[in-house]
Amino acid sequence: MGTQSQTFIDAAALLTRGESHRVWSLIVTIFGDLARREGEGISGAVLTRLVGLMGIKPEATRVALFRLRKDGWIDSVREGRGSLHCLTQLGRRQSAEASPRIYDAERQFPEYWHLLVSGSGEQTGRGQLDSLLLTGDYLPVGAQAVIGPGRLPDDLKGLLGVEADRFFIPGWLHDQICPPELMAQYLALENDLRAVLERLHNAPLVSVEEAAALRLLIVHSWRRLLFRHSDLPDWFFPEGWPGPTCRSQFRTLMDLLPVPELSSLEELR
Amino acid sequence: MGTQSQTFIDAAALLTRGESHRVWSLIVTIFGDLARREGEGISGAVLTRLVGLMGIKPEATRVALFRLRKDGWIDSVREGRGSLHCLTQLGRRQSAEASPRIYDAERQFPEYWHLLVSGSGEQTGRGQLDSLLLTGDYLPVGAQAVIGPGRLPDDLKGLLGVEADRFFIPGWLHDQICPPELMAQYLALENDLRAVLERLHNAPLVSVEEAAALRLLIVHSWRRLLFRHSDLPDWFFPEGWPGPTCRSQFRTLMDLLPVPELSSLEELR
Repeated sequence: MGTQSQTFIDAAALLTRGESHRVWSLIVTIFGDLARREGEGISGAVLTRLVGLMGIKPEATRVALFRLRKDGWIDSVREGRGSLHCLTQLGRRQSAEASPRIYDAERQFPEYWHLLVSGSGEQTGRGQLDSLLLTGDYLPVGAQAVIGPGRLPDDLKGLLGVEADRFFIPGWLHDQICPPELMAQYLALENDLRAVLERLHNAPLVSVEEAAALRLLIVHSWRRLLFRHSDLPDWFFPEGWPGPTCRSQFRTLMDLLPVPELSSLEELR
Repeated sequence: MGTQSQTFIDAAALLTRGESHRVWSLIVTIFGDLARREGEGISGAVLTRLVGLMGIKPEATRVALFRLRKDGWIDSVREGRGSLHCLTQLGRRQSAEASPRIYDAERQFPEYWHLLVSGSGEQTGRGQLDSLLLTGDYLPVGAQAVIGPGRLPDDLKGLLGVEADRFFIPGWLHDQICPPELMAQYLALENDLRAVLERLHNAPLVSVEEAAALRLLIVHSWRRLLFRHSDLPDWFFPEGWPGPTCRSQFRTLMDLLPVPELSSLEELR
């Protein structure tokens, strides 16, 4: 670790404190950020160096890669004395789906949202609500209602339905969407991203590899929180939710630490 | 009954068939229609003759008046050899409140309606829903939601709220608002009012007293059904609900049988 700059060490410490990142999840972030298009791959050597900069041992990386191959996310081929790893079609599709939510400077949401309500008794649409929840597009509100994006579906059959461009969201639903623990983690991320920004502004530039590792730690810290709640407009979240601030800091950091050319990382080997 | 015209006998038979009207409720209709303003009263003699035309015995009228005095609806004072009955302030207020719903040619409703939803757990606004239902302004939708007229209230505290100019109402809620039995009674009323209209168009005019009794039977038959469901726009009701047709027939009959001068009824004594 003696080869690392103080700027990198300080910034990485901020982004990895609290809890250790799960290695397989970190690798999903890395491929999603650096090599999510068909034909792109990362050599085992570069991958080991990048996760090594994040404090992760080569053995843990091998275990994680094994798991990701087993789950059909990653393909590995021998290349000379090492390996080349790339996302499978499944991995590329999932990365592409997650990408706008992570990288968009501003989330686009439908103007209208709809609320579907069942009754409490038999034959009042409760089974229908359960089916809708399985699609993943709906937010449950107690046992009798769900909220979904867009205008009312055409065939509501047994459900009471209403669409509007704004709902009044009560405190308990704010807390269901973003519980106090997650809110605290968002506030911590806001502070950490601000601190990383300050360090990058005041310190000399980090190396290409450090810049890549730092970028990936930032993407991963942001993605971890994002995917712990439903993808909803800001007005669904508790007052003071720093999601939009974090997104803006994230975008600034992405511009400061642009995605590196894979070839430039490979040349450092 | 030998003094009654065939037109009246036929029409009254249509309007009283099925189930007998409760006398106290009929008397409430009579005062609400003929004497709902301050200073207006109906003599015991006229009241007995009117309800007599509807097939009700003087003894039943005395019992009903006793009950209505006890409930604070009716005041009775001696007047010469008989009594004069009139609505109390409470009775006038309640009659005035019910009046637009009964007599308006077209019901006016707010353009917007709102839906309030609680959660299923503790501290998710369920007690608040119960309080709202006690106001009588809300329609329950299962155990977790209510619908009310107008825009969203200012302070929703623990409730999820949404307002819209139209909701999609499922079949089970249509049936809760207007159950099949009530729907059947509406369809029967539509037929009966049409038949009464035909008889009045084809037959010689009935007497002043018969016209009054017929008018009151019509008001009562209409009011009985109206107040067995919530006061809601047509789109809340099952498909084929003849409420608007009945209202239009009712208005035509009210014009054919205008409210009689109380003095003209008293002169017939």
